[in-house]
Amino acid sequence: MSDQSESNGITPEANAQHAQKMAKKKAARDKIMATKTEQRGLLIVHTGKGKGKSTAAFGMVFRCIAHGIPCAVVQFIKGGMATGERDLIETHFSDICQFHTMGEGFTWETQDRERDVQHALAAWAKAKELIKDPDIKLVLLDELNIAIRYDYVPVADVIAFIEAEKPDDTHVVITGRNAYDDLVERADLATEMSLLKHPFRSGVQAQAGIEF
Amino acid sequence: MSDQSESNGITPEANAQHAQKMAKKKAARDKIMATKTEQRGLLIVHTGKGKGKSTAAFGMVFRCIAHGIPCAVVQFIKGGMATGERDLIETHFSDICQFHTMGEGFTWETQDRERDVQHALAAWAKAKELIKDPDIKLVLLDELNIAIRYDYVPVADVIAFIEAEKPDDTHVVITGRNAYDDLVERADLATEMSLLKHPFRSGVQAQAGIEF
Repeated sequence: MSDQSESNGITPEANAQHAQKMAKKKAARDKIMATKTEQRGLLIVHTGKGKGKSTAAFGMVFRCIAHGIPCAVVQFIKGGMATGERDLIETHFSDICQFHTMGEGFTWETQDRERDVQHALAAWAKAKELIKDPDIKLVLLDELNIAIRYDYVPVADVIAFIEAEKPDDTHVVITGRNAYDDLVERADLATEMSLLKHPFRSGVQAQAGIEF
Repeated sequence: MSDQSESNGITPEANAQHAQKMAKKKAARDKIMATKTEQRGLLIVHTGKGKGKSTAAFGMVFRCIAHGIPCAVVQFIKGGMATGERDLIETHFSDICQFHTMGEGFTWETQDRERDVQHALAAWAKAKELIKDPDIKLVLLDELNIAIRYDYVPVADVIAFIEAEKPDDTHVVITGRNAYDDLVERADLATEMSLLKHPFRSGVQAQAGIEF
C-alpha cells in the first residue's frame, strides 16, 4: 500500500496541508450539525422524469426495516412493477412492513378510467388508514403523483389530510413524476430526478434488478 | 366504490374517450417496447447534489437480491453511513450479496490524506476483482465519485478498466456527487438527483430510515 501512495506523489507537507484543511472543514460541519437537533416525521417527495424515484423510496423502506421501524407501502399505479421489492418484503419482512398493491398497471394498460379511479380512491383510503396508525412510522405512497395528475385523487385532499392528520413522528414519502408545485412547496424534503442518459434510447430492454 | 366514482363526475362518454386515448397510448408504447430487445450489463451513474443517489443504488441491490441475482457493494468513503443497508444485507442476504466497507468516513472526519488514498486504492482493487467475477451480476461502487474527485482514484483508470474488463452481462453502479463528465458520457444510464427542498436547512437532524 505504501508504494501506491508514494507513487501518488504525496509529500509529508501535502499531507499536513490536507489534514489542516479537513480539520477546518470538520469544525465548520460540526458547528452546523450541532444546530440540527429536531427529530420529526417528514413529508418527502421524489419527482422528475429521471429514474430512481421509487427505487430510492424503497431504499428508505429497507432502511426502516433494517432499523426495525414499522413501515408500509401503498402502490397507486404500477401494480406490475416493483415486483422484486414486493416479493422480498412479503417473503422476509411482512411482520414489519405492510405492502398494498392497489393499482393494476399503467393507465394505458387498463384503459378503463372508472376502474382506475376506483382503485386510486381505494388506495388513498388505505393510505389514510396507514398514515393515521400510530405504530407505523413511514408510509410510502408509490406513484401517488400519477394518480393526482390524472385527477384520480384530488391534490387538495392529500395536502389537507397530511397537514391535519399525519402524526408528528410519521414520515410520508410520495413518488411519481410531475408532482404538483403545491405538494413540493409543502414537502420537507423534495428531490428531482433528472435523466442525463437512458439505455431505452439505445434499444436495451427493461432488466431484472435494474428496472424492476 | 361506485358512489365515489360517480361523485367524480365520470360519464360513460368520458370513460369511452379515456379508453380510446389510452388504447392509442398503449399501441404507441408497445411499438416502442418491441424495439427494446437487448439485454446487457449497464454502467449506471447516480450523481447531483440531491438525495437518493446511494439510496436508489441500494434499492437496485435489493432488487437483485429479490430476483436471486448475485451482487456486491463496495463503499468507498462513508463507512459510517448506510449502516442500515449493511446490517440488513449482512444479516439476511450475505449468501447473495458481498458487502465491503473500505472507507472510514467522510474525508473531513479522517483528516489523513495518505490513509484515505490507501483505503480508496484498496477499495478500487476490491471493486476490480468483484467486477471481473463472472458470477456477480451487479456491483455497486458507492461514493466512488467522491474518491475520484479527491484524486484518490484516477477517473481514466476507472473508465479504461470498465471498458476493457467488465463482463458484458455485469451491471456497475457508481454513485456520488460531482461525477466527471467523461464518466457520465460513458454511462448507459445516468441520473442527476437535484435538491428541491432539504430539511437540514430547517434544523431537522439526520434520522434513522431516512438519512441512514
